Amino acid sequence: MEPTRPERAPGGHARRRDALRDLLREAGLDALLVTDLINVRYLTGFTGSNAALLVHAGDDADGGEDRTVLATDARYTTQAAAQTPDLAMLVERACAPALLTGRDGRIGFDSAHVTVDGHADLMTALADGELARAPGLVERLRAVKDEGEIDALRQACAAADVALAGMIAHSGLEPGRTEREVARELEERMREAGAEAPSFDTIVAAGAHAAIPHHHPTDAPLAVGDLLTMDFGALVDGYHSDMTRTLIVGTPADWQRDLHALVAEAAAAGRAALRPGTATRDVDAAARDVITAAGFGEQFVHGLGHGVGLVIHEAPAVSATATATLEAGMTVTVEPGVYLAGRGGVRTEDTLVVTDAGAVPLTQSPRDLEFRNDP
Amino acid sequence: MEPTRPERAPGGHARRRDALRDLLREAGLDALLVTDLINVRYLTGFTGSNAALLVHAGDDADGGEDRTVLATDARYTTQAAAQTPDLAMLVERACAPALLTGRDGRIGFDSAHVTVDGHADLMTALADGELARAPGLVERLRAVKDEGEIDALRQACAAADVALAGMIAHSGLEPGRTEREVARELEERMREAGAEAPSFDTIVAAGAHAAIPHHHPTDAPLAVGDLLTMDFGALVDGYHSDMTRTLIVGTPADWQRDLHALVAEAAAAGRAALRPGTATRDVDAAARDVITAAGFGEQFVHGLGHGVGLVIHEAPAVSATATATLEAGMTVTVEPGVYLAGRGGVRTEDTLVVTDAGAVPLTQSPRDLEFRNDP
Repeated sequence: MEPTRPERAPGGHARRRDALRDLLREAGLDALLVTDLINVRYLTGFTGSNAALLVHAGDDADGGEDRTVLATDARYTTQAAAQTPDLAMLVERACAPALLTGRDGRIGFDSAHVTVDGHADLMTALADGELARAPGLVERLRAVKDEGEIDALRQACAAADVALAGMIAHSGLEPGRTEREVARELEERMREAGAEAPSFDTIVAAGAHAAIPHHHPTDAPLAVGDLLTMDFGALVDGYHSDMTRTLIVGTPADWQRDLHALVAEAAAAGRAALRPGTATRDVDAAARDVITAAGFGEQFVHGLGHGVGLVIHEAPAVSATATATLEAGMTVTVEPGVYLAGRGGVRTEDTLVVTDAGAVPLTQSPRDLEFRNDP
Repeated sequence: MEPTRPERAPGGHARRRDALRDLLREAGLDALLVTDLINVRYLTGFTGSNAALLVHAGDDADGGEDRTVLATDARYTTQAAAQTPDLAMLVERACAPALLTGRDGRIGFDSAHVTVDGHADLMTALADGELARAPGLVERLRAVKDEGEIDALRQACAAADVALAGMIAHSGLEPGRTEREVARELEERMREAGAEAPSFDTIVAAGAHAAIPHHHPTDAPLAVGDLLTMDFGALVDGYHSDMTRTLIVGTPADWQRDLHALVAEAAAAGRAALRPGTATRDVDAAARDVITAAGFGEQFVHGLGHGVGLVIHEAPAVSATATATLEAGMTVTVEPGVYLAGRGGVRTEDTLVVTDAGAVPLTQSPRDLEFRNDP
């Protein structure tokens, strides 16, 4: 059987379902149909590729937990029995409609995940009940991490740190190496450092490519004088790390040094603004104002950051249009960037956890522009 | 800049948009809002992570192509200009609603992809027009591959074949190696053979684990007498290969030999049934009947196969409940399996292209139970 995995849900997934029940009662729902697989995993530990969960709102006296049911198909019965022995199981291919068949009451569904066709199927299945839009309830819980989750994120961030340090120490960023080679080696080194996989498609962008925020690595070689942006992360127990560093191949020109210093200042301002109670749009503004004041506001073409956890981009958003407020235990990225078409760009990104004492970086690689492979 | 990529859309993506226009006119639609990123890529070549496309139905005389617009956000303007120079571009973060603002007429949307909340946003944006459900139109086109696509799939399948042959030749499947080591080496060998990445999470399941169809590799070592199931594939230019082989570590027991022969017979029956004009449910039945007749029908817990292309699971489904009919140019998997809880299981899977002369396997590894690493 599977070796025992580290416990990433202290108190068990049952505690998360209890917390969700509080939200359901607040929202006046009798139950919530959970269809997003990441949300199912968060609430149950089940990791199969086809599942849905009906969480009943009643408290323990009402049998809310007893009436909670996981549905999956026949491929996963063995796995579900092992991963969620405490939950009733329904074996059906069309998981979500099957969970609603014959139910009544006011049942919430995640309208940000359920498709228009999927909704029609749910309506057909639900004879007497009422379907109510209830987006983002589980995501709200997921945004605040528990200790086990932060530990997994810390390990994921450390794997990326170790990979980058190893690359540099072994002269992996020398002129002539290709973007693709650098990306592959970062990924391999993250695996050696304990990652299950990269947490997203590794970005390595050299020279003019560094002006493309989401560039895919090519066979273009690194050249002396290139800005080199690497945006990468590791996956540990399902949790994603996210880090970007822009380094110089060789010695920087003045404009490159100035641009890097500007982005570093913006990143520092953003990190310093990460406090419980602060609106994430104000965090974005703290960093963006630095860049705008220097005349590069138009070249900072994306939001400052995002929550990160079981998904690489999750709540809370950290951008000019975001509506979230920070809480202790949230894990977010801070990643200002300036992109100069045809010339290159600079982005610096860290993953941090918000605490009452300020933000603690989980990614800890040096943020300097220049690097040395002789220690 | 990016090196030139092989052309995977002979005649250009414009030809695919023309074919889509025929479907739109059949469906009585003035335009189709394409929101699924894979469909956007198929129709335009654009590979960014935020985009939508409005394809106008008018033929060339009506300016259907001139009125077709790609929307993406500011991170991707450089990339979109390079990948889709022939299309009008709209730069907006909320791509899909932006494309509908001020439009009228009868506009189709993909109700199998658009969420309930997303639909509400579209309704708000569209002042005078009508939104009509139009699921699966692009998927219908995608199901039949052109020559460039089949070439990419052939390369992706070959990378998996080369990886498995290399594993075996270098004694990679010896007792004591772990499932995880085997998975990692297969993935590394696929990359060496030209894959951009694995096409999905590699499955390596030894011994009793082979009874779990979608087992994740662990640190469990291979042992003499284990059935060893490997389900893996490669990604080449965005196209996915998919192959499963079950091998024996050491020498098989009689029950293992019998089980493998049974699944091999079912797979052969499924492959032989792949003809243009055949309902895919009949292909499923051809293989399933073999297994049911042997008394293992309950242990074949999934459909026989699926279409494969830009997505690992795409149209047409090949299962007992599927409604598709095969056409020449479709690429599908045939993958019967029998799973015996606690003992192990056998699955054999190939990716094949349907032609007028029958099905041509693109995966070409030997299907034997036993393997030899001395050539």
